[in-house]
Amino acid sequence: MASTPKSNILVVGFGGIGTMTAYNLEASGLATVTGVLRSNYELANERGFKIWSCDHGQINSWRPTSITKEVPYVRAGTTPFDYVVVCTKNIPDIPPTVAEIIAPAVSPRHTSIVLVQNGINIEKPIIAAFPNNVVISGISRMNSSELRPGEIFHQDHDTLIIGAFRNPNLSIEVEHRAAERFTELYNASGKATGEYSKDVQFMRWRKLVYNASYNSLCAITGMDTSKLRLTGSAVTELLLPVMLEVKSVARAAGYQLAADQEDVSLNGDPLDGYFRPSMQQDIEKGNYMEMEVIVGEAVREGQRLGVPVPMLTTVYSLLKVLQFRTKVNRGLVELPPIKDFGAGDLMRRS
Amino acid sequence: MASTPKSNILVVGFGGIGTMTAYNLEASGLATVTGVLRSNYELANERGFKIWSCDHGQINSWRPTSITKEVPYVRAGTTPFDYVVVCTKNIPDIPPTVAEIIAPAVSPRHTSIVLVQNGINIEKPIIAAFPNNVVISGISRMNSSELRPGEIFHQDHDTLIIGAFRNPNLSIEVEHRAAERFTELYNASGKATGEYSKDVQFMRWRKLVYNASYNSLCAITGMDTSKLRLTGSAVTELLLPVMLEVKSVARAAGYQLAADQEDVSLNGDPLDGYFRPSMQQDIEKGNYMEMEVIVGEAVREGQRLGVPVPMLTTVYSLLKVLQFRTKVNRGLVELPPIKDFGAGDLMRRS
Repeated sequence: MASTPKSNILVVGFGGIGTMTAYNLEASGLATVTGVLRSNYELANERGFKIWSCDHGQINSWRPTSITKEVPYVRAGTTPFDYVVVCTKNIPDIPPTVAEIIAPAVSPRHTSIVLVQNGINIEKPIIAAFPNNVVISGISRMNSSELRPGEIFHQDHDTLIIGAFRNPNLSIEVEHRAAERFTELYNASGKATGEYSKDVQFMRWRKLVYNASYNSLCAITGMDTSKLRLTGSAVTELLLPVMLEVKSVARAAGYQLAADQEDVSLNGDPLDGYFRPSMQQDIEKGNYMEMEVIVGEAVREGQRLGVPVPMLTTVYSLLKVLQFRTKVNRGLVELPPIKDFGAGDLMRRS
Repeated sequence: MASTPKSNILVVGFGGIGTMTAYNLEASGLATVTGVLRSNYELANERGFKIWSCDHGQINSWRPTSITKEVPYVRAGTTPFDYVVVCTKNIPDIPPTVAEIIAPAVSPRHTSIVLVQNGINIEKPIIAAFPNNVVISGISRMNSSELRPGEIFHQDHDTLIIGAFRNPNLSIEVEHRAAERFTELYNASGKATGEYSKDVQFMRWRKLVYNASYNSLCAITGMDTSKLRLTGSAVTELLLPVMLEVKSVARAAGYQLAADQEDVSLNGDPLDGYFRPSMQQDIEKGNYMEMEVIVGEAVREGQRLGVPVPMLTTVYSLLKVLQFRTKVNRGLVELPPIKDFGAGDLMRRS
């Protein structure tokens, strides 16, 4: 291995998951990471990331080999990226799209694109935009968040489930080999686990059971996964019905999840953990949520396959309202001026 | 009229609606109001209420004839209250109940109990507790809120729809006469409108079309009625489906609302008004919501009458979670201690 050149990797997005993913890739000693940072660029450039990680320990100041504010444009003839690892949120309803973001750094036929992102059908626009590149699915199972800008709190073991999405333009063997190589790389630090999977869609539907239910409902209600369970009523009336709808759609799509999948998903988080899933964290921070790839796509798959999804549909409708609220709060929606009731400034509603 | 003794009235609850209701009753010159205040007692006692009212103008300091912190106990033989007007929230899931609150001040066979409150089936526990008293329904159509403690902003004309609930122990004539007398009293100020109604249940179901939809969904999404309408999607996917379910339950219960009731309810608030309905205001202030009498009872009526109410049921489930959240925030629920992840205080989630 000593003579193998290091993999040249671009990691896009340095939130809780992206930072730990990049850290683990560099910790392998086999990769050089260029990091694309947006909101936390200045801070990371100045002070580096402060990390508390259950796998890697406490790190007071860390930066990837190089950092940049924008996805670099890779000219033909210059050193290409072997992997572009995308750890941003996937929010197709808010431009730019993932494909547009990474396009400058993707070398046709060479770069493998790794989507460490939530949701289903996320590979479709990527394969359409980069028909000759391997697209790899990464499902991160660690729980890691950026508590404050540049401060990462990573609280359970980093397991990344890795496999190739099916790109009909490429041979399956090429895809599997690329995914296996990335899995080896991910395991090389000895601290994190890369888990190779041949059936990434199955894995994505499995994760969706948790995400479409807990992630959505925590975002809507402002309750973490523990408190939601402790209500009792939310389990029987909201979480389980949504989980079972996802399971039905998955089955119609050809993925028969475990008979007890809803129990596994329901009880996956420790009851004393009080985890706030990503969409809840996003809405609390005033950020957009990945509701289209997590819930919107599940609803559309249900409709396409003729599976009734009434609970998912209502959850989706509520999330659309919350996404609109974020747009309003960010000034992206023009509202009619408020009526003057003549009560003077003192009495005006805020 | 000059020789008629003034009506002796107890008003319980001095929020936006209660304060204006009490103010209008005293403005009649025909009533003496004793006010029961809780959270704003000290402030109102010291400084009086500051009121901006579209009907009564700007008032810098007002108090009812007398104020008290607790519902007074009326002994047999002392002057009874002619009316006990209840303007508190109706939250049967959080003790004490309305019947328990007003019991000390209700003189059997004499006091008429006026419920200026939202929801349906609210008269049932009152008639059960006070079988020989007239119970009057008041549906307030004014928009009035307490912006800050002791400061009332009342922004559209005070119309109170008044009629008797049917108490099978009393004669209908006695009930109607009592409701008519209260209507006259409410009109006597010349500033507000008391609108007598013979069919209070019809009126309550009609109001429920708005309350079960807008009031609930504004509370759940944190969006006022205007912003909710401006999403577009919320109208077709959430508001109208809930409204139509309420309409179906009302019909099965014997109340055929207007054919275009959903349009009337949908467009009742001015689009440039940005009204925040009561449950939204409550949850924003950390208060309990009247979700049981507005949504819970509608769901139970639907179930009792065999009318499918899937949207109302989901809305109800979400409101239960939010009510639980308020209990948690007020320290009424004991939660398991949070797991110590060993990250030190700096990294602990709040």
